[in-house]
Amino acid sequence: MSKQIAILATNGFEESELKSPKDHLEQFGWITHIISPKGGSIKAWAETDWGKEYPVDKLLEDVDASQYDALVLPGGVINPDQLRTDKKVIAFVQDFFQQHKPVAVICHGPQILINADAVKGRRLTSVESISQDLKNAGAIWVDEEVVVDNGLITSRTPKDLPAFNAKLVEEIKEGKHQKQTL
Amino acid sequence: MSKQIAILATNGFEESELKSPKDHLEQFGWITHIISPKGGSIKAWAETDWGKEYPVDKLLEDVDASQYDALVLPGGVINPDQLRTDKKVIAFVQDFFQQHKPVAVICHGPQILINADAVKGRRLTSVESISQDLKNAGAIWVDEEVVVDNGLITSRTPKDLPAFNAKLVEEIKEGKHQKQTL
Repeated sequence: MSKQIAILATNGFEESELKSPKDHLEQFGWITHIISPKGGSIKAWAETDWGKEYPVDKLLEDVDASQYDALVLPGGVINPDQLRTDKKVIAFVQDFFQQHKPVAVICHGPQILINADAVKGRRLTSVESISQDLKNAGAIWVDEEVVVDNGLITSRTPKDLPAFNAKLVEEIKEGKHQKQTL
Repeated sequence: MSKQIAILATNGFEESELKSPKDHLEQFGWITHIISPKGGSIKAWAETDWGKEYPVDKLLEDVDASQYDALVLPGGVINPDQLRTDKKVIAFVQDFFQQHKPVAVICHGPQILINADAVKGRRLTSVESISQDLKNAGAIWVDEEVVVDNGLITSRTPKDLPAFNAKLVEEIKEGKHQKQTL
């Protein structure tokens, strides 16, 4: 059965953290949508400088979590810093948790989960620089290449992408997780 | 009496948040040092892209808080994200608090104070995107152009720089603040 996966990002997303999961999911014949609060295209960050533009498939205001089987939140130091203060972003992310659907987050992406108040008591990882913020928000932070906690999949950096992509597929195949909630 | 002020930064500091306080402090005949964990020069971020290179006056490993009257921590989304995981940075910042000296922090700069465990019970501001992290770390976060709490001076964004610079000078002239502590 085909799946439809939301990838939410804005300017400054780390290129590999969007492109690698997207390519991996599409290998299964699944549909991915790059969703953003802004229309047109969004500009990648490629390790040390601005990268390529990626076309936005859907405006955030035109979509609903009920249309998707899972959510992917790429990192990049600029992208989540923008998204975490956007109320529509927070509502969209919270809907995936309330609908018990898999959410996969990497690098600085978990900053968005802090504002969504979605990390309390959850076992997860992230880029090291935001680990203290996640602990202070109530998360159980661990330093592992991929952490799966009832539909919440997290990784640290681009080098973890193979493990991240594999677990993302597993969790999507499993479907809803009743303990994936706010 | 002349004063000597440490400005701690690395690549990706917001240019105006370093240059404006530096220029302002030097108008009083005071000495400023750009200090960084890396030698040579550090690259500014100018609003939407990389900016100019600034020469590093002193390597972090060669200086001590006891040589300075105050500390300035510029922001930028990239710079504090790098500095906050550096143990030498955290020790240097903590020394200013332990020596009751003024510390001025703007934009994303307070992320460093979270890792220094220096915000509990302190009244402060920052760029909005990290406000939840500061609250979770125990700070009393307010949305004001400049906040002064016993030698801790904080502002939100480059547009607050005139107020930030003025309060910074006031606090340096006052000298040590016994309630500025860890």
